[in-house]
Amino acid sequence: MVSMKYCARCGVPVTRKIPAGDNRERWCCEGCNTVHYQNPLIVVGCVPKRDDKVLLCRRAIEPRRGYWTVPAGFMELGETMAEGAARETQEEACAEVRIGYPFASVDIVDAGQVHVFFTADLLGDFAAGEESLEVALFREDEIPWHDIAFRSGEFALKKYYEDRGKNNGLHVHSVRRHRE
Amino acid sequence: MVSMKYCARCGVPVTRKIPAGDNRERWCCEGCNTVHYQNPLIVVGCVPKRDDKVLLCRRAIEPRRGYWTVPAGFMELGETMAEGAARETQEEACAEVRIGYPFASVDIVDAGQVHVFFTADLLGDFAAGEESLEVALFREDEIPWHDIAFRSGEFALKKYYEDRGKNNGLHVHSVRRHRE
Repeated sequence: MVSMKYCARCGVPVTRKIPAGDNRERWCCEGCNTVHYQNPLIVVGCVPKRDDKVLLCRRAIEPRRGYWTVPAGFMELGETMAEGAARETQEEACAEVRIGYPFASVDIVDAGQVHVFFTADLLGDFAAGEESLEVALFREDEIPWHDIAFRSGEFALKKYYEDRGKNNGLHVHSVRRHRE
Repeated sequence: MVSMKYCARCGVPVTRKIPAGDNRERWCCEGCNTVHYQNPLIVVGCVPKRDDKVLLCRRAIEPRRGYWTVPAGFMELGETMAEGAARETQEEACAEVRIGYPFASVDIVDAGQVHVFFTADLLGDFAAGEESLEVALFREDEIPWHDIAFRSGEFALKKYYEDRGKNNGLHVHSVRRHRE
């Protein structure tokens, strides 16, 4: 829950209370009767594959600067989850991908996030985007398991290799206290 | 994109602009430098099954009052997607379920929503919750296909029956202009 002081619609101070017909506390405006809901956010990513290698990015920004991650980021309005995963790969790794299917989902409960990961084929070149220090291809035995930025990405990579290219459904995992 | 007039943190009027280092317009506060991001929301639901029947709810509220739906609603902070689907079923159908696996996901692009559906086993009794006019079990040949409230739920039910209890991965669909 992010703290809120003023109503974004009318500028009046908000109060924390349970609205009529609801069963949990929300930020409520008694000026214009707006209820300001706060809900989990979606992070979308993918594992870009070429031959027997996958593309990882070393983060240039906090949290977890210097650690490796699959390309991933917050889904934006106006796009599908798959489009978001492709866009993030373009931004972080300057790489075009053909998105496959979603194979892993991690509920990061305390952060209010759900991370969804897709398979993908890497098409063409790649390079470090603004949020990456470097971008590189790794064979399975080269994956820097001890330097992976987030537990969600680690879970995704683990399941990715367990699946061996077969769609075994969406692997679901949850994290109650997250690393960053 | 929901219109925003005032900064929820400091109460100053916000402006629509591209923040430094970003590539799209956001609501920005020049008083306290907060960027107010707006991102898609997650709706979670399930198809509660008992023997050869599934549980549907007839909506008592808008949008699509009077139409049938699988139990579903906005995911809340502090829960996993599966927990959210179970909670919504409790609220709308007064029913306890054992959640299975996610089998369908629909990007409702213009509404800024992602709807995720799980398989589930119905445990015990059920009854109409506050948001339902009635709740009932349907055999496959009894499903009111012409009176299903939302295209996402219709897609989920269709895939549910195509799968016949087998986990064929997460079926992904997107809707660009939605019914409600």
